[in-house]
Amino acid sequence: MGQTLTEKILDDHLVEGELEPGEEIGIEIDQVLTQDTTGTMVWLQFEALDLDEVQTELAAQYCDHQTYQFDFKNTDDHRFLRSAAGTFGAHFSRPGNGICHQVHKENFAAPGKTLLGSDSHTPTPGGMGELAIGAGGLDIAVAMGGGPYYVEMPEVTNVRLEGELPEWATAKDVILEMLRRLSVKGGVGKVFEYTGPGVETLSVPERTTITNMGTELGATSSLFPTDEKTEEFLEAVGREDEYVELQPDDDAEYAEEVTIDLSELEPLIAKPSMPDNVVPVREVAGEPVDQVMIGSCTNGAYEDILPGAKMLEGREVAKRTEMIIAPGSKQASEMLAREGWTAELMAAGVNFSEATCGACIGIGHVPASDSVSLRTFNRNFEGRSGIEDDSVYLCSPEVATAAAIKGEIVDPRDLADELGDLEDPGFEMPDQYTGSTADLISPDEAIDDELIKGPNIGDVPLKDALDPHLEGSVLLKMTDNITTDHIIPATSDILKFRSNVPKLSEFTLSRVDESFAQRALDADGGFLLAGENYGQGSSREHAALCPMYLGVEGVLAQSFARIHKANLFNFGLVPLTIDEETYEKIEQGDDVEIVDDVGEGVREGKEEFTVRVNDDWEATARLDASERERKILAAGGKLSYTRQQYDESSGSGASPADD
Amino acid sequence: MGQTLTEKILDDHLVEGELEPGEEIGIEIDQVLTQDTTGTMVWLQFEALDLDEVQTELAAQYCDHQTYQFDFKNTDDHRFLRSAAGTFGAHFSRPGNGICHQVHKENFAAPGKTLLGSDSHTPTPGGMGELAIGAGGLDIAVAMGGGPYYVEMPEVTNVRLEGELPEWATAKDVILEMLRRLSVKGGVGKVFEYTGPGVETLSVPERTTITNMGTELGATSSLFPTDEKTEEFLEAVGREDEYVELQPDDDAEYAEEVTIDLSELEPLIAKPSMPDNVVPVREVAGEPVDQVMIGSCTNGAYEDILPGAKMLEGREVAKRTEMIIAPGSKQASEMLAREGWTAELMAAGVNFSEATCGACIGIGHVPASDSVSLRTFNRNFEGRSGIEDDSVYLCSPEVATAAAIKGEIVDPRDLADELGDLEDPGFEMPDQYTGSTADLISPDEAIDDELIKGPNIGDVPLKDALDPHLEGSVLLKMTDNITTDHIIPATSDILKFRSNVPKLSEFTLSRVDESFAQRALDADGGFLLAGENYGQGSSREHAALCPMYLGVEGVLAQSFARIHKANLFNFGLVPLTIDEETYEKIEQGDDVEIVDDVGEGVREGKEEFTVRVNDDWEATARLDASERERKILAAGGKLSYTRQQYDESSGSGASPADD
Repeated sequence: MGQTLTEKILDDHLVEGELEPGEEIGIEIDQVLTQDTTGTMVWLQFEALDLDEVQTELAAQYCDHQTYQFDFKNTDDHRFLRSAAGTFGAHFSRPGNGICHQVHKENFAAPGKTLLGSDSHTPTPGGMGELAIGAGGLDIAVAMGGGPYYVEMPEVTNVRLEGELPEWATAKDVILEMLRRLSVKGGVGKVFEYTGPGVETLSVPERTTITNMGTELGATSSLFPTDEKTEEFLEAVGREDEYVELQPDDDAEYAEEVTIDLSELEPLIAKPSMPDNVVPVREVAGEPVDQVMIGSCTNGAYEDILPGAKMLEGREVAKRTEMIIAPGSKQASEMLAREGWTAELMAAGVNFSEATCGACIGIGHVPASDSVSLRTFNRNFEGRSGIEDDSVYLCSPEVATAAAIKGEIVDPRDLADELGDLEDPGFEMPDQYTGSTADLISPDEAIDDELIKGPNIGDVPLKDALDPHLEGSVLLKMTDNITTDHIIPATSDILKFRSNVPKLSEFTLSRVDESFAQRALDADGGFLLAGENYGQGSSREHAALCPMYLGVEGVLAQSFARIHKANLFNFGLVPLTIDEETYEKIEQGDDVEIVDDVGEGVREGKEEFTVRVNDDWEATARLDASERERKILAAGGKLSYTRQQYDESSGSGASPADD
Repeated sequence: MGQTLTEKILDDHLVEGELEPGEEIGIEIDQVLTQDTTGTMVWLQFEALDLDEVQTELAAQYCDHQTYQFDFKNTDDHRFLRSAAGTFGAHFSRPGNGICHQVHKENFAAPGKTLLGSDSHTPTPGGMGELAIGAGGLDIAVAMGGGPYYVEMPEVTNVRLEGELPEWATAKDVILEMLRRLSVKGGVGKVFEYTGPGVETLSVPERTTITNMGTELGATSSLFPTDEKTEEFLEAVGREDEYVELQPDDDAEYAEEVTIDLSELEPLIAKPSMPDNVVPVREVAGEPVDQVMIGSCTNGAYEDILPGAKMLEGREVAKRTEMIIAPGSKQASEMLAREGWTAELMAAGVNFSEATCGACIGIGHVPASDSVSLRTFNRNFEGRSGIEDDSVYLCSPEVATAAAIKGEIVDPRDLADELGDLEDPGFEMPDQYTGSTADLISPDEAIDDELIKGPNIGDVPLKDALDPHLEGSVLLKMTDNITTDHIIPATSDILKFRSNVPKLSEFTLSRVDESFAQRALDADGGFLLAGENYGQGSSREHAALCPMYLGVEGVLAQSFARIHKANLFNFGLVPLTIDEETYEKIEQGDDVEIVDDVGEGVREGKEEFTVRVNDDWEATARLDASERERKILAAGGKLSYTRQQYDESSGSGASPADD
């Protein structure tokens, strides 16, 4: 039987397990990436593992989230990250050099490699045939130590692309169409593999817009085959020697198939406040727009900004609308400046920002109250922009620019009709990506050989081995689709405590219930209760680490988002799946007791546990966990577990990196 | 007797009083400017005055401090300011368009006019012969209503410039030399008028660097005559028809004279943490530098950034140093981009920011802990950068760039020797300032005709008429040189409450004593005690408004900074001057009683009041106040006073604008 491309790459990297959907596999990681809000914890963990040097082919530390450096804690974090990269042998990308996914794509991503990153949009270079997966920071630390990455073998979905994009439709509309059809839960446990004749009509940057935002489907990753277009891109970034042809076998078998006829797409837009709330732009036309932002890891490349620049030639941004461009990389900024587009855009009334994730996670350019913001970003979860009750729409740069010109939402086809002289600028990849790498400090150029910790950079908290007897009250009952933004908000006033767990924990679930953190601390143990898809969104491990710090011992949910579930294991919290009836019946404040010996049950592979509620009634909760996840849980989390392993292996003479 | 240039312009605008130093004069204001952190209160006060339209020739509202919009409150403020400018007939400069002083210089400042601005660096266009004065927001509101601006007639100091700047010395070194000689208190109650043969060697942008930072001397204003260089500048900004020749009379008499031989200057630097802590750069050479920033209203023009760009051609920023350029205006950004410098600077490793005050007031790019930052800004008060115990140095763009290249402080002359091929780039004003005005919305283009207030924009608090009997405890004893940054910090977490007085007041003097605000509220009345030069620094009226809101009734100090003293009158707080002995003797917590009837004394011109301390001993406190200031104080502040006046004048049929 033929293999999918996903299976081929996994096969090449397999160190444990079998490629059966649902089975846990261990794979070798070639490259890792971290960024500034997850990276400090990664390196503190790497330090705690007592290792000397990064063991993967390549590790890259980016500074992209907090580049405005609102607080000395941000700047201290950046200095610490530079020192960690230097000390342990990673590339360091200075603040202002751009968003990790964009810079990684330009400089390091390569077909056929595996990439693990502590950011949920890590799958971006799937568009160039790299199998890239987002994970918790601790997984990154272990992978950097040379350990395999363990993941449930995903199902592979064939997304067959046919036809060619019509005028004014873009790659962004492809992924918005996927979200419209499949929803934010539609990709859980899956890799989306793009095939079919439509593939060759899309350049690599278009493909990476699609793979980037595959994360919003909940997918493990998204992947394109490689072809002439991949070769062209690698030539354009000066790395043609890294080209490898990668295609699925002709007789590959896929778990499901989705067909998208590109020629039938039209400009789409995700309405507030979920990326799958997608409608044709025309359906919301006429809505006045206060702010337009182009940028992010989804649409922040040079060639993503170019169409808007062309549309604005000889025009001005509407006076009622603020238009801000935050390029995805300094390379993009530099190219736009070098070719004169920056000056023209500024003359049209555009405000240029540093290259940063910034506004996408509520850092800077927070919308005004009761206002509408159109963004080319990937997420519009309520409140993520930095203000509750926001109205953030997600769309292509072309739709965003049309709105900036008219001051209201408008389908660019209709604006073209109205203006008479506005043409679809098309999507054009440059022949050559020029742009300096002055802000990328290689391990050879490193200027630090020891860690520099500011006063806000603390130690990694550890958890004891799993308690055999788990009992406590339900500290909080939550609905479906709780995001990691709900669990630990990423706004700047909170993000700055990422390296300071006790302080950060005070904000745990504050967006759901402000009193939660204090109640949890006071209760000294207890459970969280949630509906479907608990922990969707960003990969931030603090969403498990902080509840752990507050004493939460387990989460009862109808289902879990993949990365967050892994993070729960990694920090020693028991993730138990319950059915809808049980969810409905349990109330906040109820007393929950796991009747069985949890420590023993976890270790010995027990899948069903009896939950006793208020000493009154009982229900069944499932623990879906691999043998390895069980060991981690029993040890009190991955850090304790990995150290245990190193201790054992060093006892037998093996080096830690052989784990 | 001949007149100084200052006297000539004042004479032209005099509506009350005589031009005798120390006497209060009322002058007509031609232009006003406000910015986003002081502007909301200005417009709320303008609204409270019940006026329909701005009465000055020109009013301009800039958004420059909070342009990163970290919080929706910032964005709401900007929207409110746009709506206020539109409603009342002011120009509106969108966030990202640049710093008020730079944009005003480029677009509106004109020789011979008077400008009043709610920002302490308002004197900037003194470099082109405009008499420009910084004032509290309430003064701006009243001036916009057509009322005169009242100020103590300053002494005029003749700063005679001789010779020509040698290589690597710049206009920044002229003002640093002034600060070295005269200190931050050296200009209190003075206008510095620059004369002599050295004047014609300096272009307008160089002159405005000097007049801008005259504020750090504590001066009321700084002024250059106009000449061919002024004409050249006005031609370059397309406003040659606004040229007027202005020179002091040959036999003008000055109160004092200072002579600076430009040819004897060398690169200077202000060490932490006061702008007058000036030494030759060579004295601190070798200090490793973590951050270099070029920008601000002092050195943020196109021609200020150009020398650094030329110095960096073919070079890179040191890997250990982060270099950030925040242009003073989008026009500067646009010109740099259009001429290719932006791309080159980015390639050298520079991070480009939006055009903003930003970091100069601790908003963004806060230095790391225990690190050194070199900035081309105007202030380095301890903590102003956003972190306590900071090490901020002030210098020219050339000195800053030299440090960025070497990674440590270095005199550019020595760096030139070391590198062999580094030449002084010189200072070159462009023939033509190109750059769009798309972000400057004129009253004709206004899109709002009513105020848009977000939920954080409150009303203006009012104070009752002055209590005849003042008694209370000394709530806080402070040292010399307490700045308005100490009184109300301007960091972003605090600045966002500028339009919300109750919330903002919680931070009053928190940098001196965190418990102060609550203690003051609890005490319900009381005094502040300070040494020399109380209230220096920024013009922010919140530094008077918030203590007023907390119930503070008076300030006992050895001396007051000019703008802050005016603000104390404006908000109904009694500023009493005491001698050093009294200052030393009074302790925090002591009970202070003004023995005389204060209401009556203030109204009737009493200059000395008896202060009784702890019912035990007595001292004398002076009230230096004009008749008008006494009326304001007695009425409970300027807002109450001005409304009273309008009520009276409308009773007599006159329009409010005739005040």
